[in-house]
Amino acid sequence: MPLLKFHLLKGRADDEVDRLLETTHRVMLRSFRVPEQDRYQIVTEYEPSRFRALDTGLGFERTENFVLLEVVSRPRSKADKIAFYENLCHELASECAIPPSDLMISFVENTDEDWSFGLGRAQFLEGDL
Amino acid sequence: MPLLKFHLLKGRADDEVDRLLETTHRVMLRSFRVPEQDRYQIVTEYEPSRFRALDTGLGFERTENFVLLEVVSRPRSKADKIAFYENLCHELASECAIPPSDLMISFVENTDEDWSFGLGRAQFLEGDL
Amino acid sequence: MPLLKFHLLKGRADDEVDRLLETTHRVMLRSFRVPEQDRYQIVTEYEPSRFRALDTGLGFERTENFVLLEVVSRPRSKADKIAFYENLCHELASECAIPPSDLMISFVENTDEDWSFGLGRAQFLEGDL
Repeated sequence: MPLLKFHLLKGRADDEVDRLLETTHRVMLRSFRVPEQDRYQIVTEYEPSRFRALDTGLGFERTENFVLLEVVSRPRSKADKIAFYENLCHELASECAIPPSDLMISFVENTDEDWSFGLGRAQFLEGDL
Repeated sequence: MPLLKFHLLKGRADDEVDRLLETTHRVMLRSFRVPEQDRYQIVTEYEPSRFRALDTGLGFERTENFVLLEVVSRPRSKADKIAFYENLCHELASECAIPPSDLMISFVENTDEDWSFGLGRAQFLEGDL
Repeated sequence: MPLLKFHLLKGRADDEVDRLLETTHRVMLRSFRVPEQDRYQIVTEYEPSRFRALDTGLGFERTENFVLLEVVSRPRSKADKIAFYENLCHELASECAIPPSDLMISFVENTDEDWSFGLGRAQFLEGDL
């Protein structure tokens, strides 16, 4: 937790995806101050005909590098989200050559009782986490 | 924003998917009064063994045309959601030959601070949108 | 409703997936007391390079059996969620040989107005459900 769901266009090599996931994980750790092993990332890749992303009129040109990242998390402060947006954008540009205009992020929040990490227990409720 | 996630059975031709996405986009624009370029759509297609959809006892017969649409959006009024359900159902029937009983929709809401469209910025918070 | 989204590693046979879906459906029916036909399940399978799941430092060893289950539902009580976690963990171990440390669950809640099951109508609002 958080759970990170990456939506990408097909065509990236394994090591590119690996670098994207590693970089995002490090930024997430720093922004949200969660345990190092708090890593839950899934990647789905799409043909262009199955993935349409424009710019809401903001003037961005989206390329084949476009990354749509959905984050499911218990509540984070507005400041933490803004820091995550800024830091991730900066790091993906420098580490993965992903243009700042190719990163879109969407958060959905839930609560402590909404997570079970294993053993059929709700670890946030039981003091394990 | 909103982000539209389509879940379909495998087997549609590209132009069928295209018509589905175009039609849904036009209905979304009309129902939610967002910018024309506010288009974020992803499509995942499944083998029947990986996609089970019954009818909650409502008496629908689901066919291979079944469309499950997840919408992630900042808050919309009840009236806007109801209009979206009605309009999308009507338009998919007339434009895409999708039976009214083959359309299921589920909304999840978030807030202004939960979206970054690019440049590492939270455009709804900063007056860009 | 709920909508159940399964994220799995590639490699399961059809009958294994079928048993996983059947078992989960029965546990869901018992935990949430919804109609028998209230079944909406989608399964996405990933290469290991596209699916990273660690343990938040809890000491779990994740295997190729790992199941990440996202649940989208109108509100459920804390007690119902805890029962669902416990029961699903138990049943997947006994029926599907999925180790208790290989089940992770995440809920996201929405409301009655957020569901249309067909015909362009919001069945929870209109007394159909």
